[in-house]
Amino acid sequence: MTTQQLHQQILQKKSFLCVGLDPDLNKIPQHLLETEDPVFEFNKAIIDATHDLTVGYKPNTAFFEAHGIKGWISLQKTINYINEKFPEIFTIADAKRGDIGNTSAMYAKAFFEDLNFDSVTVAPYMGKDSVEPFLAFENKHTIMLALTSNEGAFDFQTLDVNGKQLYEQVLETSKAWKNSHNLMYVVGATKAEYFTEIRKIVPDSFLLVPGIGAQGGSLSEVCKYGMNDKIGLLVNSARAIIYASNGIDFAEKARDEALKVQQEMEGILSLKFKV
Amino acid sequence: MTTQQLHQQILQKKSFLCVGLDPDLNKIPQHLLETEDPVFEFNKAIIDATHDLTVGYKPNTAFFEAHGIKGWISLQKTINYINEKFPEIFTIADAKRGDIGNTSAMYAKAFFEDLNFDSVTVAPYMGKDSVEPFLAFENKHTIMLALTSNEGAFDFQTLDVNGKQLYEQVLETSKAWKNSHNLMYVVGATKAEYFTEIRKIVPDSFLLVPGIGAQGGSLSEVCKYGMNDKIGLLVNSARAIIYASNGIDFAEKARDEALKVQQEMEGILSLKFKV
Repeated sequence: MTTQQLHQQILQKKSFLCVGLDPDLNKIPQHLLETEDPVFEFNKAIIDATHDLTVGYKPNTAFFEAHGIKGWISLQKTINYINEKFPEIFTIADAKRGDIGNTSAMYAKAFFEDLNFDSVTVAPYMGKDSVEPFLAFENKHTIMLALTSNEGAFDFQTLDVNGKQLYEQVLETSKAWKNSHNLMYVVGATKAEYFTEIRKIVPDSFLLVPGIGAQGGSLSEVCKYGMNDKIGLLVNSARAIIYASNGIDFAEKARDEALKVQQEMEGILSLKFKV
Repeated sequence: MTTQQLHQQILQKKSFLCVGLDPDLNKIPQHLLETEDPVFEFNKAIIDATHDLTVGYKPNTAFFEAHGIKGWISLQKTINYINEKFPEIFTIADAKRGDIGNTSAMYAKAFFEDLNFDSVTVAPYMGKDSVEPFLAFENKHTIMLALTSNEGAFDFQTLDVNGKQLYEQVLETSKAWKNSHNLMYVVGATKAEYFTEIRKIVPDSFLLVPGIGAQGGSLSEVCKYGMNDKIGLLVNSARAIIYASNGIDFAEKARDEALKVQQEMEGILSLKFKV
């Protein structure tokens, strides 16, 4: 998928919501545990209930790997289901990978070719040759961690390096990498005041924004400081939507929560872009 | 496995070699491609040929994930084979994971419980709460990236932060984390001169050292600057051993290469520790 197609989808759906698929067997409705593949059944129900309100799905690989081979099967089924049934949706493997060059190339193959995700999240610590193998894939997107939504973000990401904060240097440096037009960045919603500086460095890039919902970030603040003239934001919500209920009505309640976010987004888009 | 058991194994085998299992279908002997699970058959043959010369095996998850479900099955079979047949061997899932707390807990479960590895590699960028869920497992070991062996290491890891280099700050900061006694660190062999400073910060920790062999690091230099009085090093070699030949004799040739490294290690140990 191209960023133009993603942008088009956002305008059509009046939404820049991405739903995080973090299926935890301790949190999903108990009646699903009787099915053969509760993780997939949970995802499928959430997808069916929300696909017209969201432009992206972001399965986090940890929640699948925790179940070993069975979990990897659930992941494969989930991405296949999205790609077959809702091919317009932007898919993100939230994997936070990164390794030396020949190894990163294997990860890129895993997520872009074998699983056929549109994008994958990567960690920046190992630098250029750990990320460029992902960037080599055209019309695939590499979403690099810049400033994350967790407390630990302040351990290293905001350290002062030559008068800049580390995450700013990460953004700056990455712009010079080969095929950097295929980069997007993770910027946590819990740090909305940082978006102004971030937009000075990467005015045109899409930002994937976790931290809305359970983690407490404000959508309007994020939009105020983070939107660019192509919108440029994908705002992720996971727990607040997928675990809105753990009863029989979980998918319906997930839709209700997704709808609330979509409507807030529609309001913002109509104000800012008259769509 | 405890670090004491690892230390004992090193003394018994007169080796602190770890063999990296990076099975690439384009590089493994072609006759294996006719078997049902070439990746596992390759690993099994390498393990059978080298287990008395090495104290650790380090499968890199990328080389398995690249084959999707089939790859994950090969990984499961590989770790099961080592754990059942050679339970004394220290196993490392080279996965370089790291995510927000509840998600890192899922990765920890995946590698420590589901797959039953002794250790896993993690990335530091997301800070304390992305690593502590791994550290909560006693007698399991969390090997955090400090200074890696690739070129990209100089992009961020060696940036100056408050008069220190970033990787030094990473080492320093991590010492205050809960259960930090379960930490080990990745330090690339290609940067042997850095070991002196590193040992000032983490004198007692085990260091996992990639970069010997194909990447050009020197074993004697690493030992000169990196060894502590409990040895404290696990030196990894992958390509130089596992791809010593791609013919019928690949396992035999892998053993020859592993033996060369083990003998060099035996020499160093006998000089330094009279073992």
